[in-house]
Amino acid sequence: MRIALLGFGTVGRGVDRIVSERALGVEVARILELPDRLSDPRMTSNFDDILADPSIELVVECMGGLEPACSYIMAALESGRHVVTSNKAVVAANLERFAAASRASGAGLYIEAAVGGGVPWIASVEKVRRIDDVTSFSGIMNGTTNYIVDAMRRQGAEFADVLARAQELGYAERDPSADIDGIDVLNKTIISASVAFGVACERSLPASGIRNLTKADLDALAEKGLTVKLLGRGVRSDDRYAAAVEPVAVSEDSLEASVPSNFNLLTLDATTVGELKFYGQGAGSLPTGNAIVQDVLDCASGARCPVYDLTAPLSYDPSLLRADYVFRTTASLGDSEPFAEGTCLVRDLTAEAARALLSDALEHDPTTFMAALA
Amino acid sequence: MRIALLGFGTVGRGVDRIVSERALGVEVARILELPDRLSDPRMTSNFDDILADPSIELVVECMGGLEPACSYIMAALESGRHVVTSNKAVVAANLERFAAASRASGAGLYIEAAVGGGVPWIASVEKVRRIDDVTSFSGIMNGTTNYIVDAMRRQGAEFADVLARAQELGYAERDPSADIDGIDVLNKTIISASVAFGVACERSLPASGIRNLTKADLDALAEKGLTVKLLGRGVRSDDRYAAAVEPVAVSEDSLEASVPSNFNLLTLDATTVGELKFYGQGAGSLPTGNAIVQDVLDCASGARCPVYDLTAPLSYDPSLLRADYVFRTTASLGDSEPFAEGTCLVRDLTAEAARALLSDALEHDPTTFMAALA
Repeated sequence: MRIALLGFGTVGRGVDRIVSERALGVEVARILELPDRLSDPRMTSNFDDILADPSIELVVECMGGLEPACSYIMAALESGRHVVTSNKAVVAANLERFAAASRASGAGLYIEAAVGGGVPWIASVEKVRRIDDVTSFSGIMNGTTNYIVDAMRRQGAEFADVLARAQELGYAERDPSADIDGIDVLNKTIISASVAFGVACERSLPASGIRNLTKADLDALAEKGLTVKLLGRGVRSDDRYAAAVEPVAVSEDSLEASVPSNFNLLTLDATTVGELKFYGQGAGSLPTGNAIVQDVLDCASGARCPVYDLTAPLSYDPSLLRADYVFRTTASLGDSEPFAEGTCLVRDLTAEAARALLSDALEHDPTTFMAALA
Repeated sequence: MRIALLGFGTVGRGVDRIVSERALGVEVARILELPDRLSDPRMTSNFDDILADPSIELVVECMGGLEPACSYIMAALESGRHVVTSNKAVVAANLERFAAASRASGAGLYIEAAVGGGVPWIASVEKVRRIDDVTSFSGIMNGTTNYIVDAMRRQGAEFADVLARAQELGYAERDPSADIDGIDVLNKTIISASVAFGVACERSLPASGIRNLTKADLDALAEKGLTVKLLGRGVRSDDRYAAAVEPVAVSEDSLEASVPSNFNLLTLDATTVGELKFYGQGAGSLPTGNAIVQDVLDCASGARCPVYDLTAPLSYDPSLLRADYVFRTTASLGDSEPFAEGTCLVRDLTAEAARALLSDALEHDPTTFMAALA
């Protein structure tokens, strides 16, 4: 099968390397690159060259960002080309449109690499759904924030110092906002909920991050046998579903607490198979490249041709996600009780109400930190 | 697709329930049962009735044991019927023969449910191997022993008391030897090594269990930040491989240490995707039934038709698996040094040499316990 890569950054180079070294019956025939970087005879800076080549059966989009990725994906699907993408932002924003274009042309839409990098999450959720209803999912879906929290906890270091080291190691971007404010996890949660529940997931989900987490917060929670992980979560009950992104105070005995460095751990619960967890590298050139090449091989072998149906009659109901919340703030929270050193507990809030309370508290105390109790 | 069940115990009933409740385009048309239990019009006690029915395309073997399971599987494969089995003992003993029969007739051989119950392990290993070499695997593959060790650790209870409770709950057999002496894990390790490395795995691997584990052993290791898990492990290096089953003293920070109750956790390491872990229910009517039905659906949809090639030019070399070993024994061990309270450490043994040393020590002190240091 002849394929084209759109983008030749970390992920694109991983795909090219795996395909060439492992001799898989796949050929990277064309590569879309910027005009000043055309260093390989397969490269072009004009997407129309790729679209006009009838020998290209599949397009791998690994450019990132919303545009022109979105337009290129739509054009490829409309032309009957299968699309494999690692771009969570564009998939979270456009899955419904992509799914409609894929259904219309019969081209497959493969998004394994958009969530969990090398972790076989999306294909596993699809496979589980052949038999079961997925009743809930949750996950450590962002390696950068897991690296930060894990290093803070193991080394007793402060957030800013660990973030700086993560940036040196290439685990965090120069502008880390998308990671530390939960935006990256929000995109992955929207995609996971869409695939797990079969709905066009609500996009304005409650989301908060770990920007304000301190060593003192971790120490205080440790005295209760707890630590913090940034989780994306979704739940379904009968004809309703909800989802959210927030720091969660999990038991130090849990598998989540043990996830080291920049690894991911994704969990689902389903009718007959029960609880399943999937762990691996959530990012990186070769793991993410591997996930893309697995999608390409699924397509080439005919093993899997995902055509997403997002029309399950489910309504978004934020009241399904409730928990007790730990706050560390000098702002007044109303009805709260003392919890671990320096923190207090507000009982039985929806994730949405907790996010609103956090926003209020941040206006009075911009260092406020909040986590749900698992 | 019309299928037949051989055996209607816990697993067979789970398969029948999932197939009938979830309307999957599959029909359980015939069931092989003992002559005094023919309570359903689909049942027969004569396997030839099933073999003679040309409408049966696939046979699910969930009888357990070596015979007549082995003969029935061979006859089904030779007649061109696809076979799905959850029977680790018969697969570990006969995978090479089954694979040859499957290749000869073109019938698929599906063994997902034989290792890890509902955990999607075998199909994941196969999928990883489309691209990568698997360089090692390890796993908590036996729910009974994980339940026992977890309960001993969390409740500070002794082995015999927890075993009795596990037997009451149905997590352990009346005769628990196959579980607590590592025989069940040995079968699953042989199957995993065969699939992961593509060899007809050596069957006389070093194997020991947790029969002699005491609360005092766990307490002593806990002071070093360690706990015990019974692991099956395999490793490959160039043209050699090794595998073994033994208790391993793992860090309390590890994911393995956090695996609760009767859950399983299986790990592989591979060239480009790196480390992957898979967690779930390793036994039970519905999880194991789910794994079987997933295999049936893979077969019915044409998504996967495993035909195992076990001819990789690898030689078994036990020197590949080396570790330091913790012993608690009154027997003399030669060159050893004090370790945790009541235990000593013997450095740098192969798993095979450690197993031999354990056998010697057991002759002098039948309560001897041994674990590899992770």
